[in-house]
Amino acid sequence: MDSAQQYDLLITGGKIVTMDTERRIIDNGNLAISGNKIQEIFSAGELPSSYTARKTINADGKVIIPGLINAHSHIAMTLFRGLVEDLILQKWLERVWKYEFSVLDKDSVRAGSQLAFAEMIRGGVTCVHDMYWHYMAVIDLAEEIGFRLISGPPITSLGDPDFDEMIGTARKVLEQIKDYHFVHSIVQAQSTYTTTPEMMHKVYEFKGEYGVPFTTHASENQNEVDIVREQYGKTPIELLESYKLLDSGTILAHCVKLQDHEIDLLSEGSTNVVHCPESNLKLGSGIARIADMIEAGVNVCIGTDGVASNNDLDLLGEIRTAALLQKGYYENPEVFTTMQAMEMATISGAKAYGLDQTLGSLEPAKRADLVIIDFDKSHLTPCHDIYAHLVYSVNKADVDTVLIDGKIHMKDGELTTLDEEAIKAEVRAIGERFK
Amino acid sequence: MDSAQQYDLLITGGKIVTMDTERRIIDNGNLAISGNKIQEIFSAGELPSSYTARKTINADGKVIIPGLINAHSHIAMTLFRGLVEDLILQKWLERVWKYEFSVLDKDSVRAGSQLAFAEMIRGGVTCVHDMYWHYMAVIDLAEEIGFRLISGPPITSLGDPDFDEMIGTARKVLEQIKDYHFVHSIVQAQSTYTTTPEMMHKVYEFKGEYGVPFTTHASENQNEVDIVREQYGKTPIELLESYKLLDSGTILAHCVKLQDHEIDLLSEGSTNVVHCPESNLKLGSGIARIADMIEAGVNVCIGTDGVASNNDLDLLGEIRTAALLQKGYYENPEVFTTMQAMEMATISGAKAYGLDQTLGSLEPAKRADLVIIDFDKSHLTPCHDIYAHLVYSVNKADVDTVLIDGKIHMKDGELTTLDEEAIKAEVRAIGERFK
Repeated sequence: MDSAQQYDLLITGGKIVTMDTERRIIDNGNLAISGNKIQEIFSAGELPSSYTARKTINADGKVIIPGLINAHSHIAMTLFRGLVEDLILQKWLERVWKYEFSVLDKDSVRAGSQLAFAEMIRGGVTCVHDMYWHYMAVIDLAEEIGFRLISGPPITSLGDPDFDEMIGTARKVLEQIKDYHFVHSIVQAQSTYTTTPEMMHKVYEFKGEYGVPFTTHASENQNEVDIVREQYGKTPIELLESYKLLDSGTILAHCVKLQDHEIDLLSEGSTNVVHCPESNLKLGSGIARIADMIEAGVNVCIGTDGVASNNDLDLLGEIRTAALLQKGYYENPEVFTTMQAMEMATISGAKAYGLDQTLGSLEPAKRADLVIIDFDKSHLTPCHDIYAHLVYSVNKADVDTVLIDGKIHMKDGELTTLDEEAIKAEVRAIGERFK
Repeated sequence: MDSAQQYDLLITGGKIVTMDTERRIIDNGNLAISGNKIQEIFSAGELPSSYTARKTINADGKVIIPGLINAHSHIAMTLFRGLVEDLILQKWLERVWKYEFSVLDKDSVRAGSQLAFAEMIRGGVTCVHDMYWHYMAVIDLAEEIGFRLISGPPITSLGDPDFDEMIGTARKVLEQIKDYHFVHSIVQAQSTYTTTPEMMHKVYEFKGEYGVPFTTHASENQNEVDIVREQYGKTPIELLESYKLLDSGTILAHCVKLQDHEIDLLSEGSTNVVHCPESNLKLGSGIARIADMIEAGVNVCIGTDGVASNNDLDLLGEIRTAALLQKGYYENPEVFTTMQAMEMATISGAKAYGLDQTLGSLEPAKRADLVIIDFDKSHLTPCHDIYAHLVYSVNKADVDTVLIDGKIHMKDGELTTLDEEAIKAEVRAIGERFK
């Protein structure tokens, strides 16, 4: 520690909420970055006697947290923000599909995704899962911008594709993107009712062959459960189990309508769940039994879902909703803690996608994905409990500075890598097409 | 319209969400203020050929809404923000009371209330209900600052007061504050289980004598309902009916645990309800049947409750939570609309307290309490539906300018009437006493 050290970036003076295994908070800490990694975290006074830093950020009075992980989304749906409101799911889907059909191409998906990246950086999100049309446009965009993306080829019967061609494309894409720096490959299906057993067998093979995780929507609402049971005589969870897909490399979005034995199946398989409370509420799907899942040992992370059912990509708002909702649903405020809410948005999201060795907490050798939050605000005064503030009181607009992979994407509230004005103008122009 | 006109302030170019009886939105409108009132609202091009304005605010690309009304709160509880977390109600109350006992006096209540006013102005709230200790300090502060406050003397058996002295004080206070400009008098009780029948009879008399509304907490959780039933053989709502207090001048906070016949009682009496969804969730009280109440014709408004159970005074966040929650609770997205959410925070709040002739909408002759919101943000792009944005996507940090009674309290994100740095410092110093 006492030898001369050279850092690319030194962040001084902040409270560092590490989310490490001991959940340490380093008061008045110093965080040193070299290249794209955290090199060291020092308590006050522990800096080497001789060091140089090419750049220093003063974080006095601020709080530093790991970059947030939005574990389930359809990011280009920013295009449809506020377009389809107050409708039951079937009518909602019909309207959304109509608009998607009328407007989506590679360019519009890219534009909507750029807007999503801008919005997420502003809200402290540094890594996002995406499942959407024209997914290669989004993959290329993320790699270009330097935003961490979890994405990959879809396996689906939607659109009645040629099976061999779909599998061939998926294989090609998985080969192509496996060395991308910012993109983490997965294979994905829209749902168990839009995927044949033959397709699911191929998903199982891909998981083994490429070592990639698999994600799908499961048990989002009662209607889905009814459809799958009608078709297969099983619930979505039971069906996934019969496909041998309930393992630690599977991430299931929603899981709103689970029976006790299904929670046990998820727990036994170490299967991951992405909670999307605001979307579940807004579409009238219901309230997921997250406290029961966590109690059973299931790894639960959190996502915003698409903007058309949210209507934003605010993960800080999402953990607030999640924490409030569990307490209210169970009529027991002890059932879910602020720490559990923070875990969902950080380390548990990383773990779900097999990225917890490099992401999800602030520790030496992990990627320098981090968020600096300004706590000098009226609505954050006084501060008796940092976790309570992070979950209940911090507003996404309090996010001050954001780093992904050691690179500054926002500084003092200004985006540094995206032309926000141009992006907004492009999306507004696309919006005109709906009128 | 064509004669020469002089305005004190003219706000040009914004989209004006009037919340008037026709719920009109004036695109590219002009809003003229004289003194403390809205003088006229013009569509583009309708301005008189000859006019002068002492001051003009350009609201191009912005949205103007009525000042929001936080219809139930205990505002000085900002002092306890994040202090008592993840506890069941009984343990929570014990902890809160301990801290209240240790720290509350006129000065600390004033400091906590100043912070609350700063936070609320930043969030577009221009009128608040307050029920708390040392209430006269808050009443005087509101009158001094120029923030609209609904408050008045408590009638309660808490602290075992001398009955005649309490009634004498209440009478004196009601006389004293009846001509205050910014303070709207009410009489209030903490609950039906901390108020004797004799006290409630006096409340009934005060309502007739002074024409003031009455407010109390009612049916907040099952425990309260059980306590009241044990003591009186009636639910809180049934008990209030027996006191003849279920009328249009009564405002009941919470109403989480209502049976069908109780909703009918509220409807028949034209009794008002204040929904506090985030507090109800956070304390594990449950989820109120707001859609059923509105269906039955009950006037429902919205409040944040105190910061110790929220943990902020963000009314825009509160309507988002309310709208999401009703859809999720009923598993029906059509059960509650964005319009209903906006009404709760504006015209319905004004109506509940008998203030809808002067507050709650933007109309000529009403008070100039209004909020200008900056819509030129990534998370508000594109804008297909203003109400959907206001309820689901607008962030309190998008509030740009706030007027109360024609006076500017915030302009371009800067508070103009409060010394926010000094207020934060004072509250932090009080916070040190808890350590």
